[in-house]
Amino acid sequence: MLEQFKVSHDAAEFVQGDDLRNTVAGIFEKLGVSPEDSLLAADVQVLADLRGVDSHGVSNMLKSYITGYQEGSINPRPNWKVVRETPSTATIDSDRGLGTIITPKAMDIAIQKAKNVGLGMVTIGNARHLGMASYHAMMALEHDMIGICMTSCPPSVLPTFGAEPRLGTNPIAIAVPALNEPPFVFDAATSSVAVNKIRIAARLGSPIPGGWLAGEDGNPIMEESEAPEKVTLVPLGSNRELGSHKGYGFSCMVDILAGVLTGFGYGAVPGRPNFGHMVAAYSIEAFTDVGPFKVEMDEWLTMMKTTKPAPGHDRVLVAGQPEAEVEEVRREEGIPLHPDVADWIRDTCGEMGVPCLF
Amino acid sequence: MLEQFKVSHDAAEFVQGDDLRNTVAGIFEKLGVSPEDSLLAADVQVLADLRGVDSHGVSNMLKSYITGYQEGSINPRPNWKVVRETPSTATIDSDRGLGTIITPKAMDIAIQKAKNVGLGMVTIGNARHLGMASYHAMMALEHDMIGICMTSCPPSVLPTFGAEPRLGTNPIAIAVPALNEPPFVFDAATSSVAVNKIRIAARLGSPIPGGWLAGEDGNPIMEESEAPEKVTLVPLGSNRELGSHKGYGFSCMVDILAGVLTGFGYGAVPGRPNFGHMVAAYSIEAFTDVGPFKVEMDEWLTMMKTTKPAPGHDRVLVAGQPEAEVEEVRREEGIPLHPDVADWIRDTCGEMGVPCLF
Repeated sequence: MLEQFKVSHDAAEFVQGDDLRNTVAGIFEKLGVSPEDSLLAADVQVLADLRGVDSHGVSNMLKSYITGYQEGSINPRPNWKVVRETPSTATIDSDRGLGTIITPKAMDIAIQKAKNVGLGMVTIGNARHLGMASYHAMMALEHDMIGICMTSCPPSVLPTFGAEPRLGTNPIAIAVPALNEPPFVFDAATSSVAVNKIRIAARLGSPIPGGWLAGEDGNPIMEESEAPEKVTLVPLGSNRELGSHKGYGFSCMVDILAGVLTGFGYGAVPGRPNFGHMVAAYSIEAFTDVGPFKVEMDEWLTMMKTTKPAPGHDRVLVAGQPEAEVEEVRREEGIPLHPDVADWIRDTCGEMGVPCLF
Repeated sequence: MLEQFKVSHDAAEFVQGDDLRNTVAGIFEKLGVSPEDSLLAADVQVLADLRGVDSHGVSNMLKSYITGYQEGSINPRPNWKVVRETPSTATIDSDRGLGTIITPKAMDIAIQKAKNVGLGMVTIGNARHLGMASYHAMMALEHDMIGICMTSCPPSVLPTFGAEPRLGTNPIAIAVPALNEPPFVFDAATSSVAVNKIRIAARLGSPIPGGWLAGEDGNPIMEESEAPEKVTLVPLGSNRELGSHKGYGFSCMVDILAGVLTGFGYGAVPGRPNFGHMVAAYSIEAFTDVGPFKVEMDEWLTMMKTTKPAPGHDRVLVAGQPEAEVEEVRREEGIPLHPDVADWIRDTCGEMGVPCLF
């Protein structure tokens, strides 16, 4: 997340992760979700907050989950089931269960399969919002496995040369364990930019950099512009010359693996249950010795971080490192919530008769 | 490939694919490669030519392969072997065999494993140049499987904010079968642009668009510029604002899965055998019924292609479609070779005592 879009540190109210988690879990229980699933849903959101992935934390996601349960589009007690299975694969009908709750269960299955036969991969159809993709990928880490997660979202992104959205932001996450270094954790939308960044820029009245959006006719806007009312995203690479056909291709890959392959349709299918997910676990031991692998990951991560920086930059980052640094701070000093968000959570708890622990 | 960089149709000499394949195979045999492997190596190069992926065809690759065999850096008779194996995975020591030859054998293993248990994934270390990544991924198609291929290359790409190359162009390919439509075949470097495009622009004296390269200090050049002598590539996304940290992350993913996970090191390890590869096959039947999957892929591909185009564009393309269109033409009228390239092949055949079939 770019610095200018972070919650101002001075203005924030700091809440301990455990307090936020238990408060949010209480709200989920009140919405009809089982106590165990409620804690899981809360854990996914709060880990995003702890790692500085505010776009997928409580302040950005909780409201839409509450609305989804209240309107009936998310099923609080889904009868999710494995509808097909092989030694290394499974396909899950999520029965409109929240992805933040069903996907960790799918990842458990993938990990077990990887333990048995080397790899595990599970697709999830008839699904709802995933939460932070890297949460699910990171579940593989403690098992000395590489974790993968993708989600096929409703359309908001134009294909290269196109004037109609056909693809979701379709993120890809991968987590790889190391020895003493924080794990490599990459988690990114395949669009040029996250829609939240546009919304925040609009709210702040900041200009939008070129390459973030398409104009109404569908062509990418390559100059700085004002935030539009209707946001249409372009794939990573912005335009054809800069490689948007590659971002478009990665997005398609996600739409197929986490959409078509679920058997429940892809992002742009009218009336499709609105998300499809895919998780995978690769046992490192299946390919090479775990000990030397982790040592080499430490070397590889250190090499990246010690790359000589270009002028104007203090250091080179590697995926998972900034998030690990934020997590260390926030586990100590708490999660900074915008005061309006903190108040909204308190009000929501008050209305629902749920104890707010901060 | 951008239009201005294609071989001019009028100036070209047209050679039938079979003639080029058999000629190239003859050269490989003369270099000490077995007849069967020679045909395979030739097939990988010629399929690239047939599909219009000229960067990985005979004209761009053959010379370096000949040099590699002659200098002893590529082993013509590798004693490649599976050094570790599980029901769904294998790790191969390629014994310095050419990737174009070993990788199809690895893909055969991955496909067999996917038939047995749903998924197959094989890493290949101690390896040499892969050729066109999608060749290997596409091998899965006839088995009603999804194919994946990645390769961790020697460093030429800067990490975001960095001033030293740490990553290769690290391409990712995926092939997905359809029913009547050409298969989805995506194959792209995770760098902003292929180094060949810079070289060709330099040769033509054309300016380099902003966002393709870094300057000598490491910062991306975002304005049009002259082709430099020393080319340093930037990740897909060009700069941080446009999302280069995402291209950087995808490149890292490849460096781990096709590098560290091979047990033979990653791209930037000094003295590493110079490439590492990864192939995977996913059985569609393991997740969902093949028939409906292919029908839905046809619908999905048609949806992409019939997207309303933005002004200035005739149509929206989808990965694999332009290549399939070129392949149809070139299987008919032959592969257009630059006359200098055709002459060089004839001269090479003459020097080596190999029959040139055109």
